[in-house]
Amino acid sequence: MASPAVRDQDNHNDAENSSMGYCGKAMNKVVEFPRKLKKLGQDDPRRIVHSLKVGLAVLLVSLLYYFQPFYNGLGDTAMWPILTVVVVFEFSVGATLGRGLNRILATFLAGALGFGVHHLANLSGDIAHPILIGIFVFLLAASVTFIRFFPRMKARYDYGLLIFILTFCLISVSGYRDEEILEMAHKRASTILIGAFIAVFVCVFICPVWAGDDLHNSVAKNIEKLGSFLEGFGDEYFKVAGSGESNMAHLQGYISVLNSKQSEETQANFARWEPRHGKFRYRHPWRYYLKIGNLTRQCAYRIDTLSGYLNSEVQTPLNIQNNQVQELCMKMSSESGKALKELAWALKTMTEPCSAASSHITKSRAAANNLKSMLRTNAAAVAGVGGDQVHLLDIVPAVTVASLLSDVVAYAEQIEKSIQKLASFQHMQFKSAERKKPTALTSSKTSSSNVGPHHVITMDRLASLQVQESSKEIGSKFQRIRSAV
Amino acid sequence: MASPAVRDQDNHNDAENSSMGYCGKAMNKVVEFPRKLKKLGQDDPRRIVHSLKVGLAVLLVSLLYYFQPFYNGLGDTAMWPILTVVVVFEFSVGATLGRGLNRILATFLAGALGFGVHHLANLSGDIAHPILIGIFVFLLAASVTFIRFFPRMKARYDYGLLIFILTFCLISVSGYRDEEILEMAHKRASTILIGAFIAVFVCVFICPVWAGDDLHNSVAKNIEKLGSFLEGFGDEYFKVAGSGESNMAHLQGYISVLNSKQSEETQANFARWEPRHGKFRYRHPWRYYLKIGNLTRQCAYRIDTLSGYLNSEVQTPLNIQNNQVQELCMKMSSESGKALKELAWALKTMTEPCSAASSHITKSRAAANNLKSMLRTNAAAVAGVGGDQVHLLDIVPAVTVASLLSDVVAYAEQIEKSIQKLASFQHMQFKSAERKKPTALTSSKTSSSNVGPHHVITMDRLASLQVQESSKEIGSKFQRIRSAV
Repeated sequence: MASPAVRDQDNHNDAENSSMGYCGKAMNKVVEFPRKLKKLGQDDPRRIVHSLKVGLAVLLVSLLYYFQPFYNGLGDTAMWPILTVVVVFEFSVGATLGRGLNRILATFLAGALGFGVHHLANLSGDIAHPILIGIFVFLLAASVTFIRFFPRMKARYDYGLLIFILTFCLISVSGYRDEEILEMAHKRASTILIGAFIAVFVCVFICPVWAGDDLHNSVAKNIEKLGSFLEGFGDEYFKVAGSGESNMAHLQGYISVLNSKQSEETQANFARWEPRHGKFRYRHPWRYYLKIGNLTRQCAYRIDTLSGYLNSEVQTPLNIQNNQVQELCMKMSSESGKALKELAWALKTMTEPCSAASSHITKSRAAANNLKSMLRTNAAAVAGVGGDQVHLLDIVPAVTVASLLSDVVAYAEQIEKSIQKLASFQHMQFKSAERKKPTALTSSKTSSSNVGPHHVITMDRLASLQVQESSKEIGSKFQRIRSAV
Repeated sequence: MASPAVRDQDNHNDAENSSMGYCGKAMNKVVEFPRKLKKLGQDDPRRIVHSLKVGLAVLLVSLLYYFQPFYNGLGDTAMWPILTVVVVFEFSVGATLGRGLNRILATFLAGALGFGVHHLANLSGDIAHPILIGIFVFLLAASVTFIRFFPRMKARYDYGLLIFILTFCLISVSGYRDEEILEMAHKRASTILIGAFIAVFVCVFICPVWAGDDLHNSVAKNIEKLGSFLEGFGDEYFKVAGSGESNMAHLQGYISVLNSKQSEETQANFARWEPRHGKFRYRHPWRYYLKIGNLTRQCAYRIDTLSGYLNSEVQTPLNIQNNQVQELCMKMSSESGKALKELAWALKTMTEPCSAASSHITKSRAAANNLKSMLRTNAAAVAGVGGDQVHLLDIVPAVTVASLLSDVVAYAEQIEKSIQKLASFQHMQFKSAERKKPTALTSSKTSSSNVGPHHVITMDRLASLQVQESSKEIGSKFQRIRSAV
């Protein structure tokens, strides 16, 4: 069994750092800095564009100060547009819209409530005034802070709730007269609107970064990473082709998938604010992406377990190499890897994941079945070549790997189903990868009479449903077989 | 092999929601709300305390407005203390200190820089003034925004960088004369200091929540959760004692461990700001907690794979039940579970994890060794009771489970080592669980002459080193054996 290969980069750094003094470290950091800056930009050039966009938005809002009439009209509240632009401008459109709307709504609501409370306190006389205000401020700040702990509120309205407390306190506490407050509220609201408008305008109309696109791509990319691992795993584990060179580095890509949950959820929350763009409509079913992401992570956990066997000090014993177990394991691994890559491609390009992925999954299933029947017939068969009886102990690693690979195949199947469910739930009409194939046409024609009259089912949709049905059938058969393996 | 049991609560909710109209759903939410509020408070009563603390801090800062001399002195900048309190006050001391220091430092630095730029622009004449200011504002906003993408900067100084851009723009753009700016800067700085002081004071001196404590407890709690799973796993998998009742719900606790990375890293970043408190000194080696957390998660991935076998439709065949494989697997599972619980307890109470945890780990290792030698001697031995020859296929699930359990044992060992490393690196002097044991005293006396004169090694420390050494020895022996299983 594998020794756990702990992913630990810090130890290396520790050793490196301890060999030089503070001065050397500082020098090193200064020398490294431009290189790091360059890498940061190269990793995602949108970061550079975003930085320039923020600069532009701040510049635009600063220009307002040079229009004398505007500045004179606003007076001291002229700082709010700059503050709003800097605070609201985020990387993605969804995040910017979310913050902007949160800020505007919270300012309006809290302003109205604060004015009401202020007015009430004014009516109550000079002595009761501070007491009433104090009670209101305390109660509102405490209760809204408590509401911020709700996970759903925190995810979407955290900033709004903060601004709500802030504005309410500013308005209700301020010692102005009612008319002054109304004027101040009016100015503040209009300046915040101006700031938010500039931020949103620059964010949306100059090289926009859509959180929905990011989520879509990262979910697909994660599936692809798992596929790449599986494609390479068989060769690496059984060290075929006598190649001494290891491509372990290529097999580390999946690690980022393990901890992708939070970033996916954040992106989904941002994406909910975004209007229709590209292939995505407003209120696109983003939660299906989260489901697919969940499945991908669960598959990644199995793959992490599998990868532990790559670092095992003792490789599979020689006498079971070059035999059928190896061949079948490699087939399971590579076919499920190809299937995942096909699925990732289908998700990314929004085409239907019908034939290619299914055929790879069917092939990997078949390999699992073959392995199962081989194991059933005889333990000796596993020995392969010479027909020598092997110790049970010798085949344990291979059996465990086969068992884990079988789990991975099952997850690939689940991911396929989820992607098809996404395709059927969203109205965005996945394009069929194989449009206008005569067979698909005839089959849909013949079976369309069975479909109820109230359901508008396109040919693409029908084909997807059929694939789902057949995959379910195969799936349930496979389930019975697999669970016995 | 197990069918992947997808953790999916949304489907259930979907079905529930679709059965009633919007009105019913809204009613439901209103009825549910107080129950949810109560649960939120019960889950962590510190949330209620925190909310009251925020209310108090805001109340305190509001009181300043009623001191007429103070208010008159500050004028329009009197809003800054409220703003600072609301924005800076966070749940934990570390987060509040971090935000407060970030805000204060960034305001000072950006204020100075902004003043310099403003002065420079003033010298350059009326026409060049707006151009110069525009160039500076654009460059600074863009470059600081880009720096915010550095993961390390984002983790610790994100808020400071934001405030830096904000303050710089406000100061440099404002159309005031130099003297006015100096006065404004002075007022702003003092009001921000007042706000930050009130926020930090209330946060630190009234029921403080330390991020370091949270990190410490959550890392220990996560290890304990894995231990609980492993203790229950054997019984549940082999369904012993003929009990039809399943305690699957108890075995789901580990799931939260899988996605704990981000929250642990956030807490560690906050903890770095915290001064000495309780058992932790300033600059406590928090990164060791992150390492232990990493190992815990990697162990959790194996456990997630294991848990897939609990939901398998086909349980282990009857003919291998009640045999030695089952017994050994159960022993491995329960002993490693106990070891993890001991380790969690040792970490939590800061006592040395020497004897109890080690003995459990040794026992689970011994079980793994026995299983290995049993598998080596004969496949037929696995059949157990009747001596009937079993198909290889029938024992695959049990073998896979045994193999995974062996991985888990190896991780338990790694976690033990990391906790001992934490104990030896930090100066906080883990209390020995078995103080004043005569054997420990004599052994430390006899071997102390071998230790170099420059190392001050306490008895506790020495005992821990010895345990480390012996565990290393056992570990390396075990490694050779385990890797063959």
